[in-house]
Amino acid sequence: MKSNDSDDAQHGTGAKPANGRREFLKGALASGGAAAFAQSGFAAAAGSGNRVADGTGYHYLPATVDTVHWGVFSKNFKPALTVDSGDLATIEVLTHQAGDDYDRMIKGDSAVEQVYHWTKDGKNVDRRGAGPMDAPNGAGAGWGVHICTGPVYVRDAEPGDVLEVRILDMYPRPSGNLDYQGKTYGTNLAAWWGYQYHDLIEEPKPREVVTIYELDANGHEDFARPVYNYRWLPMSDPSGVRHDTYDYPGLIADHSQLQKNHDIMPGVRIPIRPHFGTIGLAPAESDLVNSIPPSYTGGNIDDWRAGKGSTIYFPVSVKGAYFSVGDSHAAQGDSECCGTAIECSFTGVFQFKLHKKDALPGTKLEALQWPLLETKDEWVIHGFSYPNYLAHFGSKPEDQQAVFKNSSVDRAMRDAFRKMRAFLMHTQGLSEDEAISLMSVAVDFSVTQVVDGNWGVHASLPKRIFTGSAKG
Amino acid sequence: MKSNDSDDAQHGTGAKPANGRREFLKGALASGGAAAFAQSGFAAAAGSGNRVADGTGYHYLPATVDTVHWGVFSKNFKPALTVDSGDLATIEVLTHQAGDDYDRMIKGDSAVEQVYHWTKDGKNVDRRGAGPMDAPNGAGAGWGVHICTGPVYVRDAEPGDVLEVRILDMYPRPSGNLDYQGKTYGTNLAAWWGYQYHDLIEEPKPREVVTIYELDANGHEDFARPVYNYRWLPMSDPSGVRHDTYDYPGLIADHSQLQKNHDIMPGVRIPIRPHFGTIGLAPAESDLVNSIPPSYTGGNIDDWRAGKGSTIYFPVSVKGAYFSVGDSHAAQGDSECCGTAIECSFTGVFQFKLHKKDALPGTKLEALQWPLLETKDEWVIHGFSYPNYLAHFGSKPEDQQAVFKNSSVDRAMRDAFRKMRAFLMHTQGLSEDEAISLMSVAVDFSVTQVVDGNWGVHASLPKRIFTGSAKG
Repeated sequence: MKSNDSDDAQHGTGAKPANGRREFLKGALASGGAAAFAQSGFAAAAGSGNRVADGTGYHYLPATVDTVHWGVFSKNFKPALTVDSGDLATIEVLTHQAGDDYDRMIKGDSAVEQVYHWTKDGKNVDRRGAGPMDAPNGAGAGWGVHICTGPVYVRDAEPGDVLEVRILDMYPRPSGNLDYQGKTYGTNLAAWWGYQYHDLIEEPKPREVVTIYELDANGHEDFARPVYNYRWLPMSDPSGVRHDTYDYPGLIADHSQLQKNHDIMPGVRIPIRPHFGTIGLAPAESDLVNSIPPSYTGGNIDDWRAGKGSTIYFPVSVKGAYFSVGDSHAAQGDSECCGTAIECSFTGVFQFKLHKKDALPGTKLEALQWPLLETKDEWVIHGFSYPNYLAHFGSKPEDQQAVFKNSSVDRAMRDAFRKMRAFLMHTQGLSEDEAISLMSVAVDFSVTQVVDGNWGVHASLPKRIFTGSAKG
Repeated sequence: MKSNDSDDAQHGTGAKPANGRREFLKGALASGGAAAFAQSGFAAAAGSGNRVADGTGYHYLPATVDTVHWGVFSKNFKPALTVDSGDLATIEVLTHQAGDDYDRMIKGDSAVEQVYHWTKDGKNVDRRGAGPMDAPNGAGAGWGVHICTGPVYVRDAEPGDVLEVRILDMYPRPSGNLDYQGKTYGTNLAAWWGYQYHDLIEEPKPREVVTIYELDANGHEDFARPVYNYRWLPMSDPSGVRHDTYDYPGLIADHSQLQKNHDIMPGVRIPIRPHFGTIGLAPAESDLVNSIPPSYTGGNIDDWRAGKGSTIYFPVSVKGAYFSVGDSHAAQGDSECCGTAIECSFTGVFQFKLHKKDALPGTKLEALQWPLLETKDEWVIHGFSYPNYLAHFGSKPEDQQAVFKNSSVDRAMRDAFRKMRAFLMHTQGLSEDEAISLMSVAVDFSVTQVVDGNWGVHASLPKRIFTGSAKG
């Protein structure tokens, strides 16, 4: 079976948005979405419809069977939306771990139900990952796990350009189940790919553990509460394949078989930091790219700073840019050590701005060959164990897997150091000596993640350093 | 020559504070020091004198030839001060890199002049480092570089106890040179031990570079400005020993031989974060300990959070605790990548509180085997490549040097992960599963430093997580 056979299943029918979308919109408008629209300056355009710019430059892209791709990026996918530079788009993102609690995170939200639909007769979204379609554990092999919405085709974008993506707003997707009205749920999996898996203290070892978190869907609280946890148990999927570990995305946990622990972490409240863990462009190197390792065009960067008010700049690798977004998180710490964050469906409001190659010299985007994040106060540079792991290990999906066995924080630190030095020299005109002194006295290096194959270290540069500068 | 022969030179005479101290006090009182004293609640005690508690529980420990030890910790040093639990002490700290600009950082401050005094006939402080006294590059071999004030003997402190040290205040030491009145200077060295040294782009390679920074001594500005830089050049010290690199502390750069670059980093302002890079206790493992690698009793942690308002908890390793402090910094980024911060003399106001071993169970200090830092908002755990490098590599000074060739961020990350897990399980009563989930969604891991031999990663836990908790 050819590896692209699944594309039809993903992008074939052009179906209308499912009911879930309308339900959610209603909820969002009642609970903060309307305010968000107004703040973004396009309230009048909020009903402008899906995929087609009507002159307002505003788009709404729901997450449906037809607009998502699961666990894989590709420059060959049919675009779910086409935008011009300057356009805005509201984009729904579904978490790929909603199966950890079907009742709270899938049931009653028909869009989510449709995307997760899987019976013995098949799945609505068959390919999940960049691996073989006939892999023993499922189509795509779970080489990549994130439900990404897109791709978004950006008109006139060409390799060498830079795409600026502003995250103007984001808000949680309320539970579609009336039993949980006004709440949004997220899930944290201490996974077999987590940093702790082979370094556990308590028995049984090893084990995978799911913790369900609850947050207020109306945005009145800035924290999430742990609700319960359970040890993930081996299971069979609807196709009859047994999974001894959580080795394939979209599995629905059978709660009748699980032992849940309630009254966990009494009184604990997790400060929320809503953000998109996976955000980026399709790289040119490969037709099928595992969604897990981040790379020079972004992807699964897993930096919690990629939330409301932030802007990310990506080097464009293919014509049209092919922007996708997924893996929304309610909260994550730097390192994401257990393998996941509070994985939670969110909707974002984005604005796209294309910077053409010829206009880059002399700007902060000169020589940009990595995802650059900007917040109100900081510039954030992302270093990886392998700056371009596809070029390093090979572009075939089976070659890409090598990065999972070769990552290190040390390598990512070196990459972040070099990138920050280059950024300061290119964009502030500093000598190497000036850049290095400044980095040592004012730039903070942190561990982005140690769980995504291509491990990350990011460097944060306070903007106020340059407030007295002509180049600031 | 026996390695302890230098102790007499350091702790022999019990000389009165030099003039420089009085000049500084005067300056400090005119420029913020008085306010600092008042805030600390012991203004009436400010004149209570050196080393002897007079019933007020307040002490003043100036940095003099007799009260500093340079580049080395030892449980055998004669205490410079003895305190009871609860006592406060103002302690002066001198930077060990003042020789980078003699005019701005040494001249006119007689205490600094005395400590740095070095002619062909000898030095006032001979031993600089834990190495051999007959080392070719100088006594102590520069195995350790920091001018530390102390040790402070804490009455009743015994191994197994925890010493709590509160940093109530800190303020910069004004230049003693009237030409620079109202200013304080710091220096940043891109050193041969820096992360950049073998990874430079521009010629000549390799090279060491000094950058001098200026800050307002009155505390009216919260930033430092770069003043000029120069490439450090091979030199001969007053004893006639040639130094091809900055391989021995206390060298005085000959500015007549240097080419200074002014107008560097135009308009750049570095946000200051005053803190003590080196703060900790003497470990039991060795009689002479290199001051550079941090370890389980603290030392050269180089965490910029160890400033005003923070508290650090150290496991006591020897009777009396033997607290010392040095390496004050005006600013440093997480990683301290070029090898140093803005190295700058500061004076701190400290309070000591002893927690006896028997009282630890059930508190946040239970099972504490590493330096724990507390700020207003966070708990910060310090991981190192080797949690106890003296035990790992051997206690002799020459064995200790092995850590410099074996450090890695990956190892430090693993250590920080394990320590934070233990902290959450011990002090919050969480199960391992609860601790790991919480760490993944709410704890930030950052690179403390990659230049101190025993590299560091720290984990920051927001306190507000527990605001709803019975154990918070």
